[in-house]
Amino acid sequence: MKNVFIIGCGLLGSSLVRRISKKKIAKKIFIFEKSKSNITKIKKLRLPGIIVKSLEDGVVNSDMIIFCTPMSEYKKIILKINSFILPNTLISDIGSSKIESSKIIKKFLKKGVHWTRSHPITGSEVSGPEYGKDNMFVGKWCILIKDKKTNSRHLKFLNSFWKKMGSKTVIMSPEKHDKIFSITSHLPHLIAYNLVKSAQDFEKVSKFNLIKYSAGGLRDFSRIAASNEIMWRDIFFDNKVHITKAIDLFIKNLKSFKVDINKKNNKSILKKLIQTKKVRTKIIKLKQDIDKPDFGRD
Amino acid sequence: MKNVFIIGCGLLGSSLVRRISKKKIAKKIFIFEKSKSNITKIKKLRLPGIIVKSLEDGVVNSDMIIFCTPMSEYKKIILKINSFILPNTLISDIGSSKIESSKIIKKFLKKGVHWTRSHPITGSEVSGPEYGKDNMFVGKWCILIKDKKTNSRHLKFLNSFWKKMGSKTVIMSPEKHDKIFSITSHLPHLIAYNLVKSAQDFEKVSKFNLIKYSAGGLRDFSRIAASNEIMWRDIFFDNKVHITKAIDLFIKNLKSFKVDINKKNNKSILKKLIQTKKVRTKIIKLKQDIDKPDFGRD
Repeated sequence: MKNVFIIGCGLLGSSLVRRISKKKIAKKIFIFEKSKSNITKIKKLRLPGIIVKSLEDGVVNSDMIIFCTPMSEYKKIILKINSFILPNTLISDIGSSKIESSKIIKKFLKKGVHWTRSHPITGSEVSGPEYGKDNMFVGKWCILIKDKKTNSRHLKFLNSFWKKMGSKTVIMSPEKHDKIFSITSHLPHLIAYNLVKSAQDFEKVSKFNLIKYSAGGLRDFSRIAASNEIMWRDIFFDNKVHITKAIDLFIKNLKSFKVDINKKNNKSILKKLIQTKKVRTKIIKLKQDIDKPDFGRD
Repeated sequence: MKNVFIIGCGLLGSSLVRRISKKKIAKKIFIFEKSKSNITKIKKLRLPGIIVKSLEDGVVNSDMIIFCTPMSEYKKIILKINSFILPNTLISDIGSSKIESSKIIKKFLKKGVHWTRSHPITGSEVSGPEYGKDNMFVGKWCILIKDKKTNSRHLKFLNSFWKKMGSKTVIMSPEKHDKIFSITSHLPHLIAYNLVKSAQDFEKVSKFNLIKYSAGGLRDFSRIAASNEIMWRDIFFDNKVHITKAIDLFIKNLKSFKVDINKKNNKSILKKLIQTKKVRTKIIKLKQDIDKPDFGRD
C-alpha cells in the first residue's frame, strides 16, 4: 500500500494514524477532519499524518480509505467523493453496526466501487484524537463483514491490514454481526444510559443527592453512559431491529426477576444469580477483561 | 473499647479485622466464622484475630459486635446469642438494606439490647477473607442508621469507630437509606445480573459464541453480575418494595428509549444521551470513581 486516507480523526481514527505510522504500513497518511477543535488538537499532538482540506485531495492520492466518522456522516461523504473515487480504491470503515448502513452505502456509492466493512471491538467512553493510542487495536477482535457482493481481494487485504493493527480478525455476515453486537454491546450501552437516566429521574423527584453514593454500582454504568452521543444514536437507529428484540428479551427477564423478588422465590433467584456468575470467569479466561477484582481500580 | 467481635469473616469482615488491628482500636479481636474453608484461609493469612468456636466466647468477652454475615443469617444468630448478650454491648452490622432486616432484629433481639446499624459503601465482586484489605473503607461513605429507638451513645461511638476505619460518615433514616440504595446499588446489580442472563438466553437460542465478543460493553456488567449470590439474594428480598419501584421506573424509561429508537426520534434520544453524560463528570468530581478512561484498565 502506498497511501491511506483516514476520514474522521477522533479516538479511533487517530489510533489508526498512530499505528499505521508506527508500523510503517503506508508511505503517506492523509487525514480529513471537519471539527476545527480536533484539527487544532491533531496539530498540537503532531500526529504523523497530512491534514487535507478537501476530500478529493485525500481520495485521489490514496489506495485505501477508512471512514472513522459517525455512521450518519457516510451518505454526505459518499455523495461528495463519488465524482472522483476510482474503482480500485479499497474503502472500509469502523462502524459498529452493519445492516442499515450497508443499505445506505449500496444505495449511494457509485456503481463499480467496493466498500469492504470492518468493525474493531475497542473504544472508550472518551472521544477525541488526544485519547487515541497506537495499541488501541492490539489483541482486540476486528470483525470483517462478508456478503455476496464482497470483493475477495479487498477482503484479503483488509484482513492483513487489521492484523498489522494488532487485531485478531474474524469474518461474519452483516446479519450475524448485528445480532451478536445487539446483545454484547448495543444493549449494554442502552441499559447503562437508561439506568443513569432513571437515577436522574429519581433524584429529581426524591430531592436526594444520589450521585454522592454511586460507588455501590451506579458509577460503573455511568462510565458507559458517558460515551459519545452521536455515535451511539447512530448505532441505536442503525441496528433498531435487533436492539428492539434485545430490549424485549431484557424486559421479559427483568419482569421474571421482579416476580422472584416479590414472591421471595429463593430457588429460582439463586439459580439465576449462580448461573450468571459463570460468565465472568469465561470472559476473563478469554482475556476479554482484566482479571483483577474491581477492574484493578482501587 | 476493649475487645471487638467480628461475626462472619469474609471480604468485609476480614477488612475490619485488618484495619482494627492496624489502628490498634481494640485489645483483642474475636472472629466467628462458620465456613471451614474460610477458617483455613484465615489461619493461613495469619489474620490478627482470635477464632472462637462458640458465639458465646466472642459475645461475653466483647464491648462491640459487628455482624458481617449475609443478612439472612441474622435471625439464627440473634436467637443463639440472646441468652448471654449484655445490654451494654454495642451491636452493629454492615448489611446493605435496612427496613426489612430491622424488623427481624426488632422482633427477635432480646428487649433492652441495642443494635445500631451501619452500611459501608464498599465491596467487590470477589468474596472471601483473602480479598480483604486494611484500606477497604478509606475515603468511602459509611451510612449510620438512626430511628426513634436508636441509642444515641452507641450511635456516637459507632460514628467515631467508622471514622477510624477511614470512612466518611453520614446519618440517615432506614427509609431514606433503602430508597437511595435501591437506585444507586440494588437496581444496578439486578440490571447487571439481568443483562448477563439475557446474553446467556440469547446465546442458547442463537448458538453464537457471544462471550468472546464481550469487550464492547457486556464485560463491564459481568463483573457486577459475579457478586456473591447469597448476599444479593438477601438484599433483593430485603429491599423488595423499593427495588420493585426502581424496576418499574427503569422499564418505563427503557420503553421510552425503544419508542425513540423505532421512530428515529433524533431530538428526544439526543437529549437523553447528552443529559446522562453529565453524571459521569459529577461522579468523578465527587471522587466516587477513578478519572482515567476505561477505569484505567488497558
